[in-house]
Amino acid sequence: MTRLRFHKSLDDLKEKLLIVAGMAEQSIQRAVEAYRTRDLSICDLVDRSELAINRFEREIDQMALDLLAMEQPMAIDLRFILAVIKINADVERVGDSAVNITERVRDLQAYAVIDLPVDIPRMSNLAAAMVRKALQSFIEADAKMAESVLSMDDTVDKLNETAHFALLNVMREHPEHTPQALNALVIARSLERVADHATNIAEDVIFWVRGFDVRHHMSAGDGTHVS
Amino acid sequence: MTRLRFHKSLDDLKEKLLIVAGMAEQSIQRAVEAYRTRDLSICDLVDRSELAINRFEREIDQMALDLLAMEQPMAIDLRFILAVIKINADVERVGDSAVNITERVRDLQAYAVIDLPVDIPRMSNLAAAMVRKALQSFIEADAKMAESVLSMDDTVDKLNETAHFALLNVMREHPEHTPQALNALVIARSLERVADHATNIAEDVIFWVRGFDVRHHMSAGDGTHVS
Repeated sequence: MTRLRFHKSLDDLKEKLLIVAGMAEQSIQRAVEAYRTRDLSICDLVDRSELAINRFEREIDQMALDLLAMEQPMAIDLRFILAVIKINADVERVGDSAVNITERVRDLQAYAVIDLPVDIPRMSNLAAAMVRKALQSFIEADAKMAESVLSMDDTVDKLNETAHFALLNVMREHPEHTPQALNALVIARSLERVADHATNIAEDVIFWVRGFDVRHHMSAGDGTHVS
Repeated sequence: MTRLRFHKSLDDLKEKLLIVAGMAEQSIQRAVEAYRTRDLSICDLVDRSELAINRFEREIDQMALDLLAMEQPMAIDLRFILAVIKINADVERVGDSAVNITERVRDLQAYAVIDLPVDIPRMSNLAAAMVRKALQSFIEADAKMAESVLSMDDTVDKLNETAHFALLNVMREHPEHTPQALNALVIARSLERVADHATNIAEDVIFWVRGFDVRHHMSAGDGTHVS
């Protein structure tokens, strides 16, 4: 494989990761749309997407493995490929969280729609934006942008905590609404998990970009890193 | 680095992964012990362990990266190192789940101890056994053993589902016990997550071992894999 073809393959790998990340982000938004509208056909769509996301995950891993096996990538490319492998695992789990949400939506079919003190669409928009931004920071190798994802996580954590106690109160004061409140609480936790995955991705980007910086600063050749 | 020293380094990497996996498994068992006894000093221990686990995770990643950068590992070693990187990420998240449990234990301090229809220690023993067995299957490169972890996951899923509905009933019929029942429900979900991480580890072991087998069957040299 020529150097040029190798770099083309790295681009393909990145492209594929972006596609699957887009699918995972869309799944979260669809799952929350299903929650909002109680539309089971959207749940089916999310569940089917998860299978596709799982297939993509394995394909990306295999591509990354083949690139490492067939080439002797330099340290910077190596670090990039490892970042892809780690980010890939988190993206796949975003898809799992979407399915966790559709499970709760299916359970909710048995109960009346009621007003609850939790803004699930807001949490979902934030979590999806974090996933998007984390991936964006990866494409642009931008550690500063990745850091901004970490601070967004605090907001989602707070929203989740507030939701937890508000929904707990609903359950205590209106036990007849417990199934709805409990499902909303579990969905809020799933969204908080999505935010955690985005945070993991952002941390991997920082680790990757910083390693790149460190290596740049060492270019006088102290020999610690051999590629 | 000589071939001998390289293999010594792979052993060190494996050794370190086993240590951190042991710490994570212990954290789960300690967190559940804290739940059983409401002992906050155990919670502190778990929270401190999590910091150590996080440090270990980064060290293992760095060791793996250095090995890949300094050597040109053959395909079989490459696959092993990538398995370490993936398993490492799941182990770290087992530690996170332990901290999620201690958060609920801290919240529980405000409420009376009551009897609940959920066997948290049983779920915890199963989840911890899955983590242990998944790691064992990795050490022994035993895909059959890894597969047995996948079937244990079904048991934990069922226990979690049963717990969910039993605790929902407690909340509806005894709203005054909602805080305790809700915390138990969240802890059961955290244990189910631990089981999911063990399942991910087992799947990575299968992927790793099967790749090894496949390569063996291709040893007539069809050239698909170049190392």
